[in-house]
Amino acid sequence: MRLSKYVLPLLREDSSEAQIASHQLMLRAGLVRQVAAGIYAWMPLGLRVLDKIAGIVREEQDRAGAIEMLMPTIQPAELWRESGRYGAYGPEMLRIKDRHDRDLLFGPTAEEVVTSLMRSSMNSYRDLPRTLYNVQWKFRDEIRPRFGVMRGREFLMKDAYSFDLDNASARQSYNRMYVAYLRTYARMGLHAIPVKADPGPIGGDMSHEFIVLAGNGESDVFYHREWDANAKYELPDATDDSAIDAFVAERTSHYAATDEMRDESREAELADQIRTARGIEVGHIFNFGTKYSESMGLKVQARDGGLVAPQMGSYGVGISRLVGAIIEASHDDAGIVWPEAVAPFRVGIINIRANDEASAAVADKLYRQLTDAGIEVLYDDRDDRGGAKFAAMDLIGLPWQVVIGPKGVERGTFELKCRATGKREDLSYDELIARFTG
Amino acid sequence: MRLSKYVLPLLREDSSEAQIASHQLMLRAGLVRQVAAGIYAWMPLGLRVLDKIAGIVREEQDRAGAIEMLMPTIQPAELWRESGRYGAYGPEMLRIKDRHDRDLLFGPTAEEVVTSLMRSSMNSYRDLPRTLYNVQWKFRDEIRPRFGVMRGREFLMKDAYSFDLDNASARQSYNRMYVAYLRTYARMGLHAIPVKADPGPIGGDMSHEFIVLAGNGESDVFYHREWDANAKYELPDATDDSAIDAFVAERTSHYAATDEMRDESREAELADQIRTARGIEVGHIFNFGTKYSESMGLKVQARDGGLVAPQMGSYGVGISRLVGAIIEASHDDAGIVWPEAVAPFRVGIINIRANDEASAAVADKLYRQLTDAGIEVLYDDRDDRGGAKFAAMDLIGLPWQVVIGPKGVERGTFELKCRATGKREDLSYDELIARFTG
Repeated sequence: MRLSKYVLPLLREDSSEAQIASHQLMLRAGLVRQVAAGIYAWMPLGLRVLDKIAGIVREEQDRAGAIEMLMPTIQPAELWRESGRYGAYGPEMLRIKDRHDRDLLFGPTAEEVVTSLMRSSMNSYRDLPRTLYNVQWKFRDEIRPRFGVMRGREFLMKDAYSFDLDNASARQSYNRMYVAYLRTYARMGLHAIPVKADPGPIGGDMSHEFIVLAGNGESDVFYHREWDANAKYELPDATDDSAIDAFVAERTSHYAATDEMRDESREAELADQIRTARGIEVGHIFNFGTKYSESMGLKVQARDGGLVAPQMGSYGVGISRLVGAIIEASHDDAGIVWPEAVAPFRVGIINIRANDEASAAVADKLYRQLTDAGIEVLYDDRDDRGGAKFAAMDLIGLPWQVVIGPKGVERGTFELKCRATGKREDLSYDELIARFTG
Repeated sequence: MRLSKYVLPLLREDSSEAQIASHQLMLRAGLVRQVAAGIYAWMPLGLRVLDKIAGIVREEQDRAGAIEMLMPTIQPAELWRESGRYGAYGPEMLRIKDRHDRDLLFGPTAEEVVTSLMRSSMNSYRDLPRTLYNVQWKFRDEIRPRFGVMRGREFLMKDAYSFDLDNASARQSYNRMYVAYLRTYARMGLHAIPVKADPGPIGGDMSHEFIVLAGNGESDVFYHREWDANAKYELPDATDDSAIDAFVAERTSHYAATDEMRDESREAELADQIRTARGIEVGHIFNFGTKYSESMGLKVQARDGGLVAPQMGSYGVGISRLVGAIIEASHDDAGIVWPEAVAPFRVGIINIRANDEASAAVADKLYRQLTDAGIEVLYDDRDDRGGAKFAAMDLIGLPWQVVIGPKGVERGTFELKCRATGKREDLSYDELIARFTG
């Protein structure tokens, strides 16, 4: 993409709208713009990151055997009356009346919808186990939206729902998601800790939140040092259930809890092996048995001919929130430092002298050649000062920067800078091409 | 995908919910399920088609130089008050109050939002021309939703917005989209006719609807035989503006109009060269000058230093509606006949004797080998009668069906059926592989 043809509304100065680094940087780097309180538009650069994150989430859901579907944003109130949650949900639910005065709502989650859909889709034990997922916009009418996309009102969530015949199978579905989530966050460069959590309004008796440590986080977490960032563990294959069960049993033996779920006697025992930190919740998984299948009448024929209400679980990843969480975890004074897997473009080319013909010719050629090779490149071909271009490129945080200018053209070497380490190298044109396409 | 692990809720019988073929087939083939009047969930098979269509739309928008962004579903009423449309829009707008009693709405279109975003993103003539697009769920509170996804309330739309310095440039942006749309529909196997249309509540003085002919269509169209399905024309390159302008001038010289825009004297002149038909609107493009930029105060610095309100246009494709339109255009008594470009899977493998070890071994191997080669395969490995499997495969309409059974294993050849033509061939295992991977 040529920057001269793009829409990248950078801000030179901090915005009074934002109190934390990720929010500030998302505004300054032109990733999002607020449309109403807690409601954001994703500008072109921001959407590329959102799509990358959603892509990784989808790949790991698919790998774990979950099947993608798509539920609507607007749900009928009837379904929530069936489950008994319509009255219980409170003012965070955005309630709507249509032109016929029927009660609708903008879904904050979709247990009711998926359960109602499975009533006519699942008939027998042969139709189980299944896990379905969907990536869709949700709405929670937060009383005080803040921190940008981290606590917005309209947000993109991956929500998955598992249906199993019995408790043992439900536990395996849960464990598969536990592992899929750890792999998902690791691929984005995040160290996420699954902590024992309060299931809250979703219900059930087993629940983990996935927390990324960050000083600005809203959650307090208490965990054994086995969950430190430098504690190493190998993730099992995504569908090897016995390896997964062993892994989850081992990992969950190490203490990790949210504020509400602390076990003070256990913490006292563990003493200085306990860590305390603040973090950002980036996922939440639940096993709630037959809460929805029973109340909403989802039953399938069992092997013995009787009818059984499936055991269910649900599994959420906050996709739009992750954009903020990744920035909280990876930025410096100059701007964002994107991990390669979620970077909006992999390479930025800076032509520091746009009106110098020889420089433009080299930069144009490099841009075309890398783009043709399938590398995502943002090419700053604007007629602007070199200093402004360097600052802009650092701010938006692409992993690699290539600098083209008259001196380089004369020398035959060009500077390649790694955004994360700051390391600079001088490479010939062919070495540059080989570095990215090799 | 193995059907034994999938969620494909087929219906044996027609549903009383549906009056037209596409709606009936979408329910019977398990593509969608209604969640509330005019609001649908996309089941796994249906979502794959929706994603394919959205993918083609995005490729052609990108090819035409449009830049993707993403606007929220929920918009603040203030923006619509600025443009003057809040009062004017009528009961099709889903109006919402949040917990603080602020007026919101579920966007039926996004001229106001994009104009407000560009107020802070575009400053000078150097920032123009630009066309931005977004693929997002919209809501129109139809008084009588019907025909399934063809006239639903929540629907997926690609909406693009162009910003130009002057009228000539705006006309070129319009023409690029005119060509991009024709290419988009052609890639989906649709013959779409751009007809002169009433701009309605969007406003402006130039507008075309893209109509796909179908007996069940809601629109009457009147067009010159030069727009017949067998009339051939070559589309110009997506960004060759002079070729595009010449093409559009030539094509629009051939009469084509909706009911509201008929020119009776011209029709009388053309006499028997005029065709009359019913059709489905699958896209609508508008050029409305400065209607929104003026009313909402979007101005950029012109080359001469003055301030100018950009000329705008907007361009919509009904992505979810297209799923219905394609089925209307391509089905038979046995079910859907998907064009390859939008088929949910390219190949269906039917193992007619799931409990026969030799058949299962061949079918398993073929499934794995094709899948590994990147071919999308749905493998019916269920323990069910052959007849039911054939009927299911015809109903869901995958382009190619491979039949594996004991006789074929013995003979060493397997039946390959083309869904569209019904033509059957007997091919060896290696020939089958070569047919799809060659």
